[in-house]
Amino acid sequence: MKGTVAKPVVGIIGTGAIGGFYGVMLARAGFDVHFLLRSEFSAVAERGLHVDSAPHGALTLNPVQAYSSAEDMPPCDWLLVGAKTTSNADLAPAILKAAAPGAKVLLLQNGLDVEDSLRQLLPDSLHVLGGLCYICVHREGPGVITHQALGAVHVGYHSGCADEAARTAIVEEGVGLFRAAGIDSQAMANLNQARWLKLVWNIPYNGLSVVLGASTTPLMADADSRMLVKALMDEVVQGAIACGHEVPTGYAEHLFKVTENMPDYWPSMYHDFLHKRPLELAAIYARPLVVARAAGCEMPRIEALYRSLSFIERRNLG
Amino acid sequence: MKGTVAKPVVGIIGTGAIGGFYGVMLARAGFDVHFLLRSEFSAVAERGLHVDSAPHGALTLNPVQAYSSAEDMPPCDWLLVGAKTTSNADLAPAILKAAAPGAKVLLLQNGLDVEDSLRQLLPDSLHVLGGLCYICVHREGPGVITHQALGAVHVGYHSGCADEAARTAIVEEGVGLFRAAGIDSQAMANLNQARWLKLVWNIPYNGLSVVLGASTTPLMADADSRMLVKALMDEVVQGAIACGHEVPTGYAEHLFKVTENMPDYWPSMYHDFLHKRPLELAAIYARPLVVARAAGCEMPRIEALYRSLSFIERRNLG
Repeated sequence: MKGTVAKPVVGIIGTGAIGGFYGVMLARAGFDVHFLLRSEFSAVAERGLHVDSAPHGALTLNPVQAYSSAEDMPPCDWLLVGAKTTSNADLAPAILKAAAPGAKVLLLQNGLDVEDSLRQLLPDSLHVLGGLCYICVHREGPGVITHQALGAVHVGYHSGCADEAARTAIVEEGVGLFRAAGIDSQAMANLNQARWLKLVWNIPYNGLSVVLGASTTPLMADADSRMLVKALMDEVVQGAIACGHEVPTGYAEHLFKVTENMPDYWPSMYHDFLHKRPLELAAIYARPLVVARAAGCEMPRIEALYRSLSFIERRNLG
Repeated sequence: MKGTVAKPVVGIIGTGAIGGFYGVMLARAGFDVHFLLRSEFSAVAERGLHVDSAPHGALTLNPVQAYSSAEDMPPCDWLLVGAKTTSNADLAPAILKAAAPGAKVLLLQNGLDVEDSLRQLLPDSLHVLGGLCYICVHREGPGVITHQALGAVHVGYHSGCADEAARTAIVEEGVGLFRAAGIDSQAMANLNQARWLKLVWNIPYNGLSVVLGASTTPLMADADSRMLVKALMDEVVQGAIACGHEVPTGYAEHLFKVTENMPDYWPSMYHDFLHKRPLELAAIYARPLVVARAAGCEMPRIEALYRSLSFIERRNLG
């Protein structure tokens, strides 16, 4: 028998901060990891991948099994998507080329329903999963990643041909993959609920980092921005509840504590803004607003933040 | 009889864009106008006041009856306050020195209840009025003012010892003052209602000019910022209604048209932000939020905007 269960072949689609970090960690743990890159292919093929990690120290992967075209990649059992949600629909051709039969496609992305556009373009035999990354990490430059803190990945099944028992096994396999690389990982019974809970953090901090030009420490240090963060969090919680999800009591307060214990952090949306990349507004704002409204829940502060971000992005890219 | 009714002595307290513009217009119409200045006293005493007005052309007043201390001013029948609302309580000593017996103190300011802090420090014999300026004007530098468009002043009685008939007469006198200087002016029967209606414009445009770094033309040109402006306007209208005021049907739409017909305009709050002066957040945001909430009306988008502005101001002045 082929050892796909013991040592699956892993492909990284989109080798930015997230894809690069988890890919390097898996490769260092002995997994056979293949990295798909676009603009940074030459830099990474020549100089490798470098992670400057506060918890783990300086990690280097060189040489890197780097590819500029998915056609050249071996059949991968697991495909970890670290690209931005804004390009999900465009990833289908690459995924179809790099996927082994019955491959698991794990989207390491924030936002709601981010799997849907890609799912429609993939055969049912490919399993789509969602992964939520609790991590402070950003890309410094081509192939160079700074990992400030945390790192857990929570994995949930989205869709595919697996029955209930097979879904559980697939999710457990994914969790095992990360754990084997020394990364905290848990199975999520309800992916949609987990995505809502993650939004309780992402909606305030990502957007305010751009609108106010502020990272987590100043946002937590000022009485008014704290109240604004809290009010935005409360709206997300109300949205989640309206959509039928349970939210642990005191969840927003819990996130306040987590954030205060983090190093000063600029969320990914700020980096996207700074480098004039598209912002993940559809996944993090527009879709939750539509879904909550359909469930009878208005989120006025979030809508105001979304409109502000849309204006800022149009000017930034225009 | 002294000719205070025919040609009242006018004092300008705070000779910025508003005080300077209306003071120059009144002086050119033959009124005896005296200007109180602080940091810009020398510049104006030496070089006069200059208004570059799109409707009226280049207007110069030189020499100017300029004062660095209110003690040196003659007794004024009308005191026009063009200072920022943030300093209102501090103006009482100067006003008491410059006021003739029974003087009318007209606050040419935006915001809600801006008369209250000053009122408490003045004797009942002095009449306090509110004036709402519908004008696009800003200060270019010491004694130099750019007037882009519009100019109307609406005048309403706030408080003092006058009975109903005397109030009407005082307001009409104020209206006549401006009209004699070629300025459109109207009496307001209900100052509080008029201040709410003015806020329907000020709350969105002032705040968004700072948060989004955008003047009126780009704010009106973008679909998302238009929706945000409209949503903020709707909240102000709801607040006004909750406080018992009638709002004309289609008032927000009317302001959209007015704004689209204006030249591109940076609201005063943006200039304050740019020059690191205090923002008029208490008068334009905090007070309306408190008053509306007391009337059972939440204004969540306005509150979010207010929190954002408070954060930005603290960083700007800090």
